[in-house]
Amino acid sequence: MTLTDLQTPALLIDLDVMERNLCRVADYAKQHGLRLRPHTKTHKIPSLAKRQIELGASGITVAKVGEAEVMLGADPPDLLVAYPVLGEQKLDRLMQVARRTRVTVALDSAVAARQLSDAAKRAQLEVGVLAEVDVGLGRMGVEPGDELLELIRAIQALPSVSLEGITFYPGHIKRLDDAGRKQLAELDALLKSITSDLRRAGISARIVSGGSTPTLFASHTIRGLNEIRPGTYIFNDRNTADAGACSLEDCAASILVTVVSTARKDRIMVDGGSKTFSSDRPSGSADVTFGYVTDDPEVRFFQMNEEHGYLDVSRAKRRFSVGDRLRIIPNHICVAMNLHEKVYGIRGNVVETVWNVEARGKLQ
Amino acid sequence: MTLTDLQTPALLIDLDVMERNLCRVADYAKQHGLRLRPHTKTHKIPSLAKRQIELGASGITVAKVGEAEVMLGADPPDLLVAYPVLGEQKLDRLMQVARRTRVTVALDSAVAARQLSDAAKRAQLEVGVLAEVDVGLGRMGVEPGDELLELIRAIQALPSVSLEGITFYPGHIKRLDDAGRKQLAELDALLKSITSDLRRAGISARIVSGGSTPTLFASHTIRGLNEIRPGTYIFNDRNTADAGACSLEDCAASILVTVVSTARKDRIMVDGGSKTFSSDRPSGSADVTFGYVTDDPEVRFFQMNEEHGYLDVSRAKRRFSVGDRLRIIPNHICVAMNLHEKVYGIRGNVVETVWNVEARGKLQ
Repeated sequence: MTLTDLQTPALLIDLDVMERNLCRVADYAKQHGLRLRPHTKTHKIPSLAKRQIELGASGITVAKVGEAEVMLGADPPDLLVAYPVLGEQKLDRLMQVARRTRVTVALDSAVAARQLSDAAKRAQLEVGVLAEVDVGLGRMGVEPGDELLELIRAIQALPSVSLEGITFYPGHIKRLDDAGRKQLAELDALLKSITSDLRRAGISARIVSGGSTPTLFASHTIRGLNEIRPGTYIFNDRNTADAGACSLEDCAASILVTVVSTARKDRIMVDGGSKTFSSDRPSGSADVTFGYVTDDPEVRFFQMNEEHGYLDVSRAKRRFSVGDRLRIIPNHICVAMNLHEKVYGIRGNVVETVWNVEARGKLQ
Repeated sequence: MTLTDLQTPALLIDLDVMERNLCRVADYAKQHGLRLRPHTKTHKIPSLAKRQIELGASGITVAKVGEAEVMLGADPPDLLVAYPVLGEQKLDRLMQVARRTRVTVALDSAVAARQLSDAAKRAQLEVGVLAEVDVGLGRMGVEPGDELLELIRAIQALPSVSLEGITFYPGHIKRLDDAGRKQLAELDALLKSITSDLRRAGISARIVSGGSTPTLFASHTIRGLNEIRPGTYIFNDRNTADAGACSLEDCAASILVTVVSTARKDRIMVDGGSKTFSSDRPSGSADVTFGYVTDDPEVRFFQMNEEHGYLDVSRAKRRFSVGDRLRIIPNHICVAMNLHEKVYGIRGNVVETVWNVEARGKLQ
């Protein structure tokens, strides 16, 4: 099967680029002695998680119990749920997962810790916990200092859960420009103070897990950090390139679309909109465009409806006709993957693999 | 099963509100002698399409061949694909659908018409065509006047397709305020000129299909219009309410989420983000919020990541704890539905029905 045999819109994965991306981060982690627990929310495909494990990942990360259930298909040696799991039903499902592999949960409240402990006790299991600390994003995580110590004490007082360490997500660092490097240095100093607080309090944090896409290749400069759990790196996307964390040539994923209308001057319509790309805008700028048109970067993807992409071709180098096809790198691949039932692994013009996106829509 | 038995995030449909919405539009269409061909892209559930047909819809509308295939489950007497279908494989799939029900396709190019004609001829079938005309949005559709006549002549010259009429989408009318009413009057005048052009050219347009959510209940004021194909009205959403086309009490769909973190001052995190709600912003304003919190409208849903909703509770009337649940009306229900495998039909606190969103992700 070749690209011309595909119906559109179709999400394509360039297998050579993907493999290069996977190896780059696996090698980086090995070189710096960092544990690698890739976040599978990006690809949502067990066989890709398997490949990450083959290349040296010590386990995998998921956001939802439903994703954990699907990812058991990759036979992971270890599984981090980087999200508090609440409610008896969901926790009981998680305990079924914990019968099959070692499970750790990231959480930031005594309530979540207690519910997890109760579920583990009911199931006669022990699960790991990472205490989440906020390092500047203001999303999840308690304040460093007394609040973190208090959370850890609460976890340590509970049966059937064991404190494995701490976790953080420096999502406030958008790119490693001058401002970003300053934020990175502050993060390093903060981590140093957090880990010495813990030591002083006699708390052993075997795992210090953190990082983000923009900080990925600077992870070794954050003292104390010993685990990374990147997700996007397997494919990369326009946001990753904009953040300076990869080049456009490192973007393995693109969406093949067909021109469905040329009725308007200077504008063409393609058969992919917010149900194909997601309506995520570029994360690091005020620009409102929805992808990078690889065939002609002068074509601006400036608007979308559910099934329509609006492309401004006034500066395009070529003319487009109804039925022509284009490839577009999405702004944010994690949300785009989640919209596709199947994705296509290609080498050049040849479609080598078709994957079901097995964990897409596993919201619970 | 009651609401407390549901795991979150969960998309809830208030069955009484939905039924009221369905009846309101069915009655409106009957009262004004308008054909009703509801767009099923909103709900993506065959049994709901069936209900629309029971209430008097003459057929249904879809955007994609994959949706058409699923919607055969509703046994529709007639099916409009409101989107040009291109490529042999997709067209051959459409012809399989056309063996089971009467199919009409909206298109705006001679290329799309010719491909459809070729496929219909191969299959020894006849399919209907609506010629799409642009009335101001600048999305699909040829210019009124000579371009429309030329498109229609091209369609009429082809075998195995029959011109049924014209279609348009006045998506440029955002709400029926003073400016919107002026646009509506212009649309009425434009339609009048288009239909008299057609008459003068001896072209019979049995169907004149059009309208949008904001113009829905003004459809009868557009002379010549004889078919509407609304989608969102079954559930409504925050955009519909903002556009003045329904009240918040008419919103049948909401998403039940759980508070997963209260670690930050004046802010809570809930377990739904862009993979649960979509990242669609409000369509009619510059406001950047992602839903209407029914439990306390002073709570602002101001930011999201894939699995995290950020709620500003600084003005909230109540305090929130980890594990609490909230209901949020999404900005745009069509894209939100498409993210959920299952949705829950409720009456009061009781979950009466669970539907699979069968046509979600049918992108091709």
